Amino acid sequence: MWDSLWINCNLCTMQGNGLGAITNGAIAIKGDKISWVGELENLPDEPNKLAREVNQLNGNWITPGLIDCHTHIVHGGERVNEFNMRLEGASYEEIARSGGGIRSTVKATRAASEEELLKAALKRANALQSEGVTVIEVKSGYGLDWENETKQLRVAKQIADHLPINVITTYLAAHTIPEEYQDNGDGYIDSIIEKLPELKKLGLADAVDGFCEGIAFSPAQIEKLFKAASELGFDLKLHAEQLSDLGGAELAARYDANSADHLEYVSEKSANAMAQSGTVAVILPCAFYFLNETKKPPIELFREKSVSMAVATDMNPGSSPCCSILLAMNMACTFFKMTPTETMRGVTLHAAKALGIENRYGSLEVGKIADLAIWDINNPAELSYHMGFNPLQELIKSGKKIIQN
Amino acid sequence: MWDSLWINCNLCTMQGNGLGAITNGAIAIKGDKISWVGELENLPDEPNKLAREVNQLNGNWITPGLIDCHTHIVHGGERVNEFNMRLEGASYEEIARSGGGIRSTVKATRAASEEELLKAALKRANALQSEGVTVIEVKSGYGLDWENETKQLRVAKQIADHLPINVITTYLAAHTIPEEYQDNGDGYIDSIIEKLPELKKLGLADAVDGFCEGIAFSPAQIEKLFKAASELGFDLKLHAEQLSDLGGAELAARYDANSADHLEYVSEKSANAMAQSGTVAVILPCAFYFLNETKKPPIELFREKSVSMAVATDMNPGSSPCCSILLAMNMACTFFKMTPTETMRGVTLHAAKALGIENRYGSLEVGKIADLAIWDINNPAELSYHMGFNPLQELIKSGKKIIQN
Ligand SMILES: [Zn+2]
Ligand SMILES: [Zn+2]
Repeated sequence: MWDSLWINCNLCTMQGNGLGAITNGAIAIKGDKISWVGELENLPDEPNKLAREVNQLNGNWITPGLIDCHTHIVHGGERVNEFNMRLEGASYEEIARSGGGIRSTVKATRAASEEELLKAALKRANALQSEGVTVIEVKSGYGLDWENETKQLRVAKQIADHLPINVITTYLAAHTIPEEYQDNGDGYIDSIIEKLPELKKLGLADAVDGFCEGIAFSPAQIEKLFKAASELGFDLKLHAEQLSDLGGAELAARYDANSADHLEYVSEKSANAMAQSGTVAVILPCAFYFLNETKKPPIELFREKSVSMAVATDMNPGSSPCCSILLAMNMACTFFKMTPTETMRGVTLHAAKALGIENRYGSLEVGKIADLAIWDINNPAELSYHMGFNPLQELIKSGKKIIQN
Repeated sequence: MWDSLWINCNLCTMQGNGLGAITNGAIAIKGDKISWVGELENLPDEPNKLAREVNQLNGNWITPGLIDCHTHIVHGGERVNEFNMRLEGASYEEIARSGGGIRSTVKATRAASEEELLKAALKRANALQSEGVTVIEVKSGYGLDWENETKQLRVAKQIADHLPINVITTYLAAHTIPEEYQDNGDGYIDSIIEKLPELKKLGLADAVDGFCEGIAFSPAQIEKLFKAASELGFDLKLHAEQLSDLGGAELAARYDANSADHLEYVSEKSANAMAQSGTVAVILPCAFYFLNETKKPPIELFREKSVSMAVATDMNPGSSPCCSILLAMNMACTFFKMTPTETMRGVTLHAAKALGIENRYGSLEVGKIADLAIWDINNPAELSYHMGFNPLQELIKSGKKIIQN
């Protein structure tokens, strides 16, 4: 006997290449797993003989719980003052003097207690979950020393103690060169690598990430980090080709990274390598928007090469103060001309792939974790079409109803 | 004795030219009006001797209830199919053949019952109100005949029976030339003018609006309409200079219109006229975004000439499916470089002015209606900075608590 069964619903299973849509479908849960999914008429018996609880949906749509596969939601402070000063016409120097930029976030993150960081992060996680998100990735990267990087990761893990959400943690110590290091970053990279075994032992991070860019770390530095991290069994990710083409995506692919993220300046050679290695292209349109960028990631190239594309918020205080996965989907369509089907795959199956969890999450398939978002919509494309409108009706996390609107 | 008093709060009163900020302030309500506002230390007695209910706010910010002064939230259908087809690569002809464009919204609006229109509009109004909106303007314009235009306006008024929100209604029959008229629109304009006295008698509309554009109505046609409407005592508004400069804004100013809206192509001459007449420039960044426009309204020119700027969602299914006033504020900053202070004035005092209701709404002043939004923020600029994050803590409408988060 199943625990619960939804009938008279439409399903985006995400099986196959598109939405894997089933109209007039049914889906059943037992424990925390999906136990049956298919067309209503293929149910093996009458609904109330099959499940203890039967839910009628009158044609509403069910998708997998959404996955935000790239966030920095654990951080101290906001960068609202800098935002305001810039618009009020302050010069770059004035903003720098008043303590703007990533260093202000590092300072605020270092100064904050775990409780303070958690309280602020929970508000952001809550906002994401209110739109159907059941899995989030959270990066460190504003501590920039062992004590504060691990503080961020511990807080990231604590989110799941307070909210029914899965948190995948990523160690992004290689985000920027901290003030304490006056060299080209080599010394800092060495200090990161030195601590990786301890990080592994503590189990604080699922993946290791870096920022490969002229203003951050070189491909050689990232390669050294990747080599050490992959030997220890960490998953890999990389912020690559956001502002210029250093070949970071190709490097990520060479090390079988789960994803390369941003990619506005990615080359065809790197795209080919990503296709080969199955490295997901994580598209981050809210940062493109907030920074007033003009160079767009080559969506058509990714399509041609069959590179899987994910879409995420990149939630962070400096370049994407965005807590809405639906807005990220809308912006991916509006700015980059991704299709609503692509953005839906981008926040489900491909996002799961970007996190290396596609065996358990990201689609409606028997045996996967029962994370279900139920939407008051007539067409799945509505999730990309609306702006600032949340049609979530119900959210099921690991088989349990956690939101009912 | 006052009914309620808020203390230890910061206030954006919107008095004067900026935010009219008061730190460590207090505000009191009696009935549905503001009865006292100022610095806490100037309160004439101890709080609990002054008011039946005293609320401690620990430094949170209070602003006037927000005002969305340009929406089309009463309409049938969505245009999600068209959105999806376009991104899937369908040609203009294929979309037209499948029934896209404004005519599909007209068809769906005509086919819908008042109950259906109301149900859909209430969801949108609810989304707006969840972000602190206490007054909305709602336009007709998808009926395009007497029966269906008045149906839209009746539904707009019914919103206020179901939600504690003020609705200002605008008659936008001159939105586009309906299929029934095969001429240049003169015949249709005459038919609109003919019915204006009856509309006035029915009390269904506060203002008359039109779409002055090559693809809609000429300045001469709009002038004919404005002349008749102003003689009957209607307020005036105009969709002007969105796609080209026909001098619509100058025309609107000449007829003392409350606002001219969109204005991407407005001329200096028109801006001068608007400054003279006190016509508000309503800035609609979400439509600019959704249509991938590149020509921006001349914010700097409006500043120079001291033209008041409002900001609104332009919520409509074709060019701005946006139900978030906070997102409109963020986009006004990000795309048009308006300051957070300007966007805050744009959704409060200047929005009230665009609706001709600034005597009762739009600022925290003794005697005005007690619409108060209480925000969990440290800096008023946060309302423009966040994307897809709603820091509303409490909403007071006409002196009554209607949302408590
Ligand atoms: Zn990032
Ligand atoms: Zn409009």
